[in-house]
Amino acid sequence: MSSSKESDDTLYLGVDGGGSKCRACLVTSSGEIIGTGLSGPANPLNGLARTLESIEDASRQALTSAGIAASSLSKVVAGIGLAGVNLPGQYERVASWKYPFSRCYLTTDLHVACLGAHRGGDGAVIVVGTGSCGFSTVDGESVSLGGHGFLLGDKGSGAWMGLKAVKSVLSAADGLSESTQLTQAVRDIYQVSGLDIIEQLSQSSSSDFAKLAPKVIEAAAVGDRVAVDIVSNGADYISALARKLLIMKPPRLSLIGGISGPLSSWLANDVVEHIEKPLDQPEMGAVYFARQQYQHEVADVVA
Amino acid sequence: MSSSKESDDTLYLGVDGGGSKCRACLVTSSGEIIGTGLSGPANPLNGLARTLESIEDASRQALTSAGIAASSLSKVVAGIGLAGVNLPGQYERVASWKYPFSRCYLTTDLHVACLGAHRGGDGAVIVVGTGSCGFSTVDGESVSLGGHGFLLGDKGSGAWMGLKAVKSVLSAADGLSESTQLTQAVRDIYQVSGLDIIEQLSQSSSSDFAKLAPKVIEAAAVGDRVAVDIVSNGADYISALARKLLIMKPPRLSLIGGISGPLSSWLANDVVEHIEKPLDQPEMGAVYFARQQYQHEVADVVA
Repeated sequence: MSSSKESDDTLYLGVDGGGSKCRACLVTSSGEIIGTGLSGPANPLNGLARTLESIEDASRQALTSAGIAASSLSKVVAGIGLAGVNLPGQYERVASWKYPFSRCYLTTDLHVACLGAHRGGDGAVIVVGTGSCGFSTVDGESVSLGGHGFLLGDKGSGAWMGLKAVKSVLSAADGLSESTQLTQAVRDIYQVSGLDIIEQLSQSSSSDFAKLAPKVIEAAAVGDRVAVDIVSNGADYISALARKLLIMKPPRLSLIGGISGPLSSWLANDVVEHIEKPLDQPEMGAVYFARQQYQHEVADVVA
Repeated sequence: MSSSKESDDTLYLGVDGGGSKCRACLVTSSGEIIGTGLSGPANPLNGLARTLESIEDASRQALTSAGIAASSLSKVVAGIGLAGVNLPGQYERVASWKYPFSRCYLTTDLHVACLGAHRGGDGAVIVVGTGSCGFSTVDGESVSLGGHGFLLGDKGSGAWMGLKAVKSVLSAADGLSESTQLTQAVRDIYQVSGLDIIEQLSQSSSSDFAKLAPKVIEAAAVGDRVAVDIVSNGADYISALARKLLIMKPPRLSLIGGISGPLSSWLANDVVEHIEKPLDQPEMGAVYFARQQYQHEVADVVA
């Protein structure tokens, strides 16, 4: 095992890139975090160049915050979990990158979130933030559900809830559905009456809609009928997603993402009893992924 | 009445502009159509410059097809019905146009569709094509419902049905809902399996989704459960829209737009019994509008 000495010096870089930000952490071979970095958007669906910039930016920060020259990027083993690369075309685009690292292993943001939540072990996660999706990996077999994006799915997510809330405002304005405190609250947020809300929202992104989600959940908590409809409908979908993942008998299931906290009280009991706290962050999951892949590669070479 | 001789020579230009095309017709003061024109997209929400170009293009065609020099545009009285100008900001943008006509009266595409359908008289219309909306004008009072656009509403429309169909394909792929002949048919259209459909549709417009609507309605007609769900849910909304319009007791109600034909058999009986054939085209409605406004103005001047 001539490589054992070498691998002791190995520095692992974990990167978790999503629609709004990109996080990186630098970890020694013994698992100690010695540097971190944070940069901007890193979803290749919204721009490849920007994504690669964000990854490099966060990575350099992780090195310099550890007191290591950014030029040493070429020596680290990187694991990258990215939004959007569940789509084969996007995966190919990123995989053809001439990366500045010694090694680079690419996978989905969901995969590294799952590895992080279960400290590198088997398990399942459901992410409910701006979007929604589920992932499970057990005995080398992985399943990915949802994550279809704002327009085509992401039911139960923050953006989905915000969109539903705005639709309910418009439907109430037409006298075709109930006007409640929630519909009034949404109007107040945008300070609009009538159809002005359409003009204001015509250029809005999923993140803009997701900003309304806390209001919707808050209103549902005090029994607002429109809000209760939205949140319970979204929660039913997330429960269905969880049951589908639990078929694989993952040893652990975690719920993560911006609205996972308040949403969990709306999930079905048979799902809630399986939920456990995530153990580590997604960027640490990217480190676990890099370590697994790298050691596998080294072992192959030695063998 | 010194103006009576003048108004006999007046040529009226009616323009109907929407998301995909713009139609114009040139009409004598006795109501005879002597020229027509057809050009491209004219929805100011998707670009003001393009919209004004399309209007001018269709208008010039209407004159030249009547054997009149395009330079005579400056002598015609124009009525323009445009998509998007139900939104106050869009109305202002178009209304500030230095138009090439003698007079120009602007209103919504819905208003001219309604005037056309009822030959200039009171009545109500529901438009179900790529989008969906309703309009009623009775005794000088008008009501406009729906028309909130692809992202925020347009329930029951062609684009809405297409979007629902794609969502059902993705949900079936996750094993969270039924896979039927419709979900397979949609896959076949895009020649994709798995998640590739998301990449293919991520840049799609409402018109692209609307192209799937005939397939959905066709599948619903032979009892495909997913398709029946979509079409009956959409039809329920259109029936609710109709009932809301009928409260104003419009003398006539017409259903127009690309999928109005096949959709009408899915509407509630109490709605269907009120539906009558539209009498004239929307661009002719724009002529009725221009004539009403112009004669009103002339009468005011004389008085």
